[in-house]
Amino acid sequence: MNKDDISKIVEVICRELSASAELIEMEASAKHIHLSQEHAEVLFGGKLTIDRELSQPGQYLYKERVSLIGPKNIYRDIAILGPPRAATQVELSVTDARFLGVKPVVRLSGDVAGTPGILVESKGKVVALEEGVIVAKRHIHMQPKDAEELGIKDNAVVSVEVDGDRGVAFNNIVVRVSDSFQKRLHLDYDEANAAGLKTGQIGRIKV
Amino acid sequence: MNKDDISKIVEVICRELSASAELIEMEASAKHIHLSQEHAEVLFGGKLTIDRELSQPGQYLYKERVSLIGPKNIYRDIAILGPPRAATQVELSVTDARFLGVKPVVRLSGDVAGTPGILVESKGKVVALEEGVIVAKRHIHMQPKDAEELGIKDNAVVSVEVDGDRGVAFNNIVVRVSDSFQKRLHLDYDEANAAGLKTGQIGRIKV
Repeated sequence: MNKDDISKIVEVICRELSASAELIEMEASAKHIHLSQEHAEVLFGGKLTIDRELSQPGQYLYKERVSLIGPKNIYRDIAILGPPRAATQVELSVTDARFLGVKPVVRLSGDVAGTPGILVESKGKVVALEEGVIVAKRHIHMQPKDAEELGIKDNAVVSVEVDGDRGVAFNNIVVRVSDSFQKRLHLDYDEANAAGLKTGQIGRIKV
Repeated sequence: MNKDDISKIVEVICRELSASAELIEMEASAKHIHLSQEHAEVLFGGKLTIDRELSQPGQYLYKERVSLIGPKNIYRDIAILGPPRAATQVELSVTDARFLGVKPVVRLSGDVAGTPGILVESKGKVVALEEGVIVAKRHIHMQPKDAEELGIKDNAVVSVEVDGDRGVAFNNIVVRVSDSFQKRLHLDYDEANAAGLKTGQIGRIKV
C-alpha cells in the first residue's frame, strides 16, 4: 500500500466518523494559563505573539511562556492561551496541583470564585493571583446539528466510552453546544493517561 | 452524635459492605519500587527496616528510600515495598514516567521483560536497571468466596464503576483470586485523580 492509498483510507474513515454523531475525538489539555488583559499588561506590557491556532475556532497559543510558583514547587515554561479572558485562569491536572502544593478544585472553565491562587511569573515580573487555579471539569464541545442528532441540548450530561487496554467510560460530562465549536471531548492529562489515550483517539458518546 | 455512635455506624456500614460481593474499596498506589535481594544488597548492604504493613497481607513499606534518576528528571524520596522480589520493579503513573523521561509501558506486576530501565540511587550507591519500569495495569485482589459470589474465576476481566463529579467506569480490570488477598481495586494516581477518588472510596464491580 503506498502513501496515496493510505491517504484515501484515512479520508474514508474521517468521513465515516464525521457522519456519526456519537463518535467524538478526545483531546487532552496540558497545564496552561489564560491571562486577563490586565495581567497580560503587567507580565508582557500587553505584547503577546500568536504562535498557532488551536482546535477550537478563535482560540490560540501564544509564543510567550510563564512560570507557576506554588508553595511546594515551580513549573516553568507554561503555555499561555488566548484570547485574553475577563479573569486570569490556570488549568492544572490534580497531579499538577499536588506537585505545586495547591488544593485541586474541579470546576468548569470560567467558574473561578473561591478557587486557590498562585504566583505567575515572567522574566522577574510577578502577578499574585488571589484565585483562578482550577482542575478543568471534563466537557464536550459540539455543534447544534450534532446535539440534535443525539437528541440532547446545551448543558446535557453524557458519558464517553473509550476502548483499549485501559478502557474507560467517563461519566458526568457536560456538553456545550455552539455554532462556533469544533466537536471534541476535552480531558486533562490524568484522565487521558488513565484511559491510555493516544492523540486523535475516538470515543463513543452515550446519552 | 458522639464518637461511640459514629464508631457503631461505621461498623454497621463496614459489615454491610463486606457482605456485598460487588462493592470494593479502591486504593491508589503512588510511585514505588520493589527491590530484588541483589539490589537491596548493593544499595543498602541488605539491611532494610520495615516501617509498616500494607493492606495486602505480607506486604510492607520499608523506612529507607531511593531516588529514581531518569533522562529528563529525578524523583527523590521514593518508597520501597517489601518483601524482596525476584526482579527489581519500579511502578510509575504515565505522568510520572513522562516527567522522568521514561516511556510509559502498561504491564501487570512481574511482567517486566522488555520494559524500560532507569537509575536507582541511595546515598551515592547506584543500580542501573536494564528493565523493570512499568505503569501497573489496574487489577483487583479478592478472596475465593468473593469470586464465587460474583460467579467469576482468577484472571477474569471486570469493570468497576465509581460515582461522583468525576464519575468513571474502569473497564478491562484483571481479577486476581487468592486466600491471602485483601479485597481491593489497585489504581495508580492518574486513574485515581481522573475519578476524583477519595481515600477508602467504594466502587461497584460489574461482571
